[in-house]
Amino acid sequence: MKIPLTQVSIIAEGVLRDHIVELVHKHGATGHTITQVEGEGSSHRHASDWGGRNIKVETLVSQEVADAIIENLSHEFFEDYSVIAWLTQVNVLRGSKFLKR
Amino acid sequence: MKIPLTQVSIIAEGVLRDHIVELVHKHGATGHTITQVEGEGSSHRHASDWGGRNIKVETLVSQEVADAIIENLSHEFFEDYSVIAWLTQVNVLRGSKFLKR
Amino acid sequence: MKIPLTQVSIIAEGVLRDHIVELVHKHGATGHTITQVEGEGSSHRHASDWGGRNIKVETLVSQEVADAIIENLSHEFFEDYSVIAWLTQVNVLRGSKFLKR
Repeated sequence: MKIPLTQVSIIAEGVLRDHIVELVHKHGATGHTITQVEGEGSSHRHASDWGGRNIKVETLVSQEVADAIIENLSHEFFEDYSVIAWLTQVNVLRGSKFLKR
Repeated sequence: MKIPLTQVSIIAEGVLRDHIVELVHKHGATGHTITQVEGEGSSHRHASDWGGRNIKVETLVSQEVADAIIENLSHEFFEDYSVIAWLTQVNVLRGSKFLKR
Repeated sequence: MKIPLTQVSIIAEGVLRDHIVELVHKHGATGHTITQVEGEGSSHRHASDWGGRNIKVETLVSQEVADAIIENLSHEFFEDYSVIAWLTQVNVLRGSKFLKR
């Protein structure tokens, strides 16, 4: 009943919200969750923009979709924006409904 | 000092808050954390109810308790509500205090 | 492009916010995220203080830095405060920038 999937976690400036949600779904995510967070990344080249309100976007997908999402995320946003992304291996209840059809 | 435990993450409509907290503790969780989130699950049969405010309930428990929680969660809520649940393996500092007595 | 790192998650009373952020960076974290959460830990000796608003501090670091953070956290706060901390193994995009220089 549990299916191994990959949790994609993305932290970004709030202004990127719609772009990231669209990107995630374009690659096959069937849902997402957004949490308001505060972040600070002192070593980042855009450090001056990186205080205060940010968003965390999370989605549960196959490893294949996860790789496609972060590959695309990297190309589109990593040059010009403060974006952090990581993958966590999880076991999802009724996980089959999260797989790309 | 670190003990391997299972993090149970549950995303649900806010209306289920008290029911889920009660369910989690009934099965042996000794604590929980609630975060306000926004969610959207486009492929879900209850998709129309699944925008806007939701809650994420998280708890750290043994694998055995985690399985009991999601088994019970599945029986009680998955037919009629938009509920997502997943398990992550973590290492908890002073983890013994999270184990069911 | 993905680098295996350790996600440190710390839940604490809001009053500890600045202390924990300082501690995390002192040991080599290059950034952190803070989320407002509600928590309850019924089995905790400080249970009476542990309802209502808390913070979750998250950071991505090497295993070595993660161990230093939780070791120090344990010494400084676990006697007198309600603090929970756990480690999750993750794979981070552009992870090298999270490593201590």
